[in-house]
Amino acid sequence: MTATIDNPPVNVLDAALITELRELLTTIRNDTNVKVTVFDSANPDFFIAHVDMALIDEPHAFDAIARDTPAGLNVFQGLGELVRAMPQVTIVKLAGVARGGGAEFIAACDMAFAASETAGLGQVEALMGIVPSGGAMQYLSTRMSRGRVLEIILGAALFTADEAAAYGWINRALPAPELDVFVDTLALNIARLPEGVAAAAKRVLPLADLASGFAREETEWGQLFANPAAERLIRGGLAAGAQTVAGERNLEALLRRIA
Amino acid sequence: MTATIDNPPVNVLDAALITELRELLTTIRNDTNVKVTVFDSANPDFFIAHVDMALIDEPHAFDAIARDTPAGLNVFQGLGELVRAMPQVTIVKLAGVARGGGAEFIAACDMAFAASETAGLGQVEALMGIVPSGGAMQYLSTRMSRGRVLEIILGAALFTADEAAAYGWINRALPAPELDVFVDTLALNIARLPEGVAAAAKRVLPLADLASGFAREETEWGQLFANPAAERLIRGGLAAGAQTVAGERNLEALLRRIA
Amino acid sequence: MTATIDNPPVNVLDAALITELRELLTTIRNDTNVKVTVFDSANPDFFIAHVDMALIDEPHAFDAIARDTPAGLNVFQGLGELVRAMPQVTIVKLAGVARGGGAEFIAACDMAFAASETAGLGQVEALMGIVPSGGAMQYLSTRMSRGRVLEIILGAALFTADEAAAYGWINRALPAPELDVFVDTLALNIARLPEGVAAAAKRVLPLADLASGFAREETEWGQLFANPAAERLIRGGLAAGAQTVAGERNLEALLRRIA
Repeated sequence: MTATIDNPPVNVLDAALITELRELLTTIRNDTNVKVTVFDSANPDFFIAHVDMALIDEPHAFDAIARDTPAGLNVFQGLGELVRAMPQVTIVKLAGVARGGGAEFIAACDMAFAASETAGLGQVEALMGIVPSGGAMQYLSTRMSRGRVLEIILGAALFTADEAAAYGWINRALPAPELDVFVDTLALNIARLPEGVAAAAKRVLPLADLASGFAREETEWGQLFANPAAERLIRGGLAAGAQTVAGERNLEALLRRIA
Repeated sequence: MTATIDNPPVNVLDAALITELRELLTTIRNDTNVKVTVFDSANPDFFIAHVDMALIDEPHAFDAIARDTPAGLNVFQGLGELVRAMPQVTIVKLAGVARGGGAEFIAACDMAFAASETAGLGQVEALMGIVPSGGAMQYLSTRMSRGRVLEIILGAALFTADEAAAYGWINRALPAPELDVFVDTLALNIARLPEGVAAAAKRVLPLADLASGFAREETEWGQLFANPAAERLIRGGLAAGAQTVAGERNLEALLRRIA
Repeated sequence: MTATIDNPPVNVLDAALITELRELLTTIRNDTNVKVTVFDSANPDFFIAHVDMALIDEPHAFDAIARDTPAGLNVFQGLGELVRAMPQVTIVKLAGVARGGGAEFIAACDMAFAASETAGLGQVEALMGIVPSGGAMQYLSTRMSRGRVLEIILGAALFTADEAAAYGWINRALPAPELDVFVDTLALNIARLPEGVAAAAKRVLPLADLASGFAREETEWGQLFANPAAERLIRGGLAAGAQTVAGERNLEALLRRIA
């Protein structure tokens, strides 16, 4: 099946979208008819912008989700781990940009393919005075060297699809006109495999245990988020146009101007 | 030394070839005159096609080999582990195509170099209704992300040398006219190193312990192989021309037509 | 800050340079004003040539450094681990060539960027009859497959920046005219991050424990270094022009001619 993310104007990851994604994933994982889920976006320019920055004023927005999240995980880690533990295959078709929690969602999926000319991936959290807290450094560390993870996190640049593929962040970059056919063919091929093959392959490859990393990132995030710098950057970013189409075009530059 | 694989028409990995490879490896590992072994193929188009599909009618063909295989490993894993544990250096020169157990043999060797224009690597097992059971997912997991392993196993596509190098599946892809000189020079350089250097380097880099993965893949393989789908696809593949030169040109398409 | 290595004619890593680097690193790690250190070279052609081969005649040159090195590490491993454990970010700007202990120093830093047209990286130790003993195989194993590490160590070739980036040895290769701007911008961006972010990210990503590997490489190195072949190659290399600008241009060929 295809799950199309649609939360205008730029698909911020807010409590409503997380709730929808959790319900969808919980339904799918018990549906033996679903072999593969392809995540794409109704907005060709943005896959998931990042976590809703306006949440700085709504500290209780996630309380309901937190109650349904396993101990040892925050709500963003809980979303990632729900995706990562899916018995069926999950694939991201990335035509546009994903930053922060959106990039973390992609990293939690089994596979990701992105358009060379139009896609972008970035962990922008450092420019908000924090570290990612939805698993970014844990997921990336299963794919690339520590030095490349540090470059992604601390350089906080928007990576092109080609750069992301070279680092192993995504499976591969494809020319934009070929992205749909490539991903749809792959998904169809997997869906048509004999019963049980895909689930068996996923069981042969158990998930890395990232629990201690999740704990570290939550601790470090909490300390940084309590600093005045984080609040100043997040509020300043919103005031300067973050979460609008124009502001998100180059969110990195927008946030660096405030800092 | 060079070991040239020659089992016409397409170098299927049958009991006879496995027996020969085991004898060769057992001899070499005790021969202090051998510093490096380069594996190539007498057939420029095929390195090792894959495990002999006709074995579906000869369940006891491997009994003798199984008796000589360490506990905890099936015969294909046993071949891979024999290669992987060699104290000397093993290098694959890949001009043609290797699928299934042939690709697993390559992944068990220390290094592999492949021709950009002509080489191909594929784990085609999913199209036969099974998962690889000769270590593919274990060996590949030491080299690339879980998502890329899943793409290889479940997408079941034939990878070019360039694609394989980009994923870390092989050391590197080279223009076909340069493959011989590159690999022969590398092998000669290693063979000429002062006594003890190559073996010391291999000891400094101990083998990853893959025992639990081997057990998982054997369990999952056994359950899938017992399904009617696997038998139908393997017999159907043979009837449609698998293991002939023509049928092996695009074995993936041949098997997908049956499914 | 920028630390420029300057030990003419080719920046060999001798006791004096190691001592200087240790003093610098020890000072920096306690200086809360330093967020990022960029290492470059006063010599555009050579970053750090390799460990001073003349030390074969000065077995006690490192005694003072050894007394300040933690148990379980030799002096070269001690330098690498001092770098690797820095709480601040360390970045290498590689315009020229680094071999042996120079390449190990780079691998111990958090990130490295190199010029496509001019940079080179090589572990040349095998051509001296030894294995690297300053962590090369340990550091490289955190970044690439065992087979690629073996190729680097036993092939002992000088890798271009593009080859090194493809293997994950360095973060990325850049056109030479862009290297300065890229690295300086990255360093400045990291230095300008809000207080605590960079250190937090480094804490979220703990260092791999490489202690058993350090012990193995020290043991193997010691046995090989005691062989007559190592002394013959090292003395022969010096006599043939190693550690001069001309001899270092193609040190690999120079050492192979002796062997």
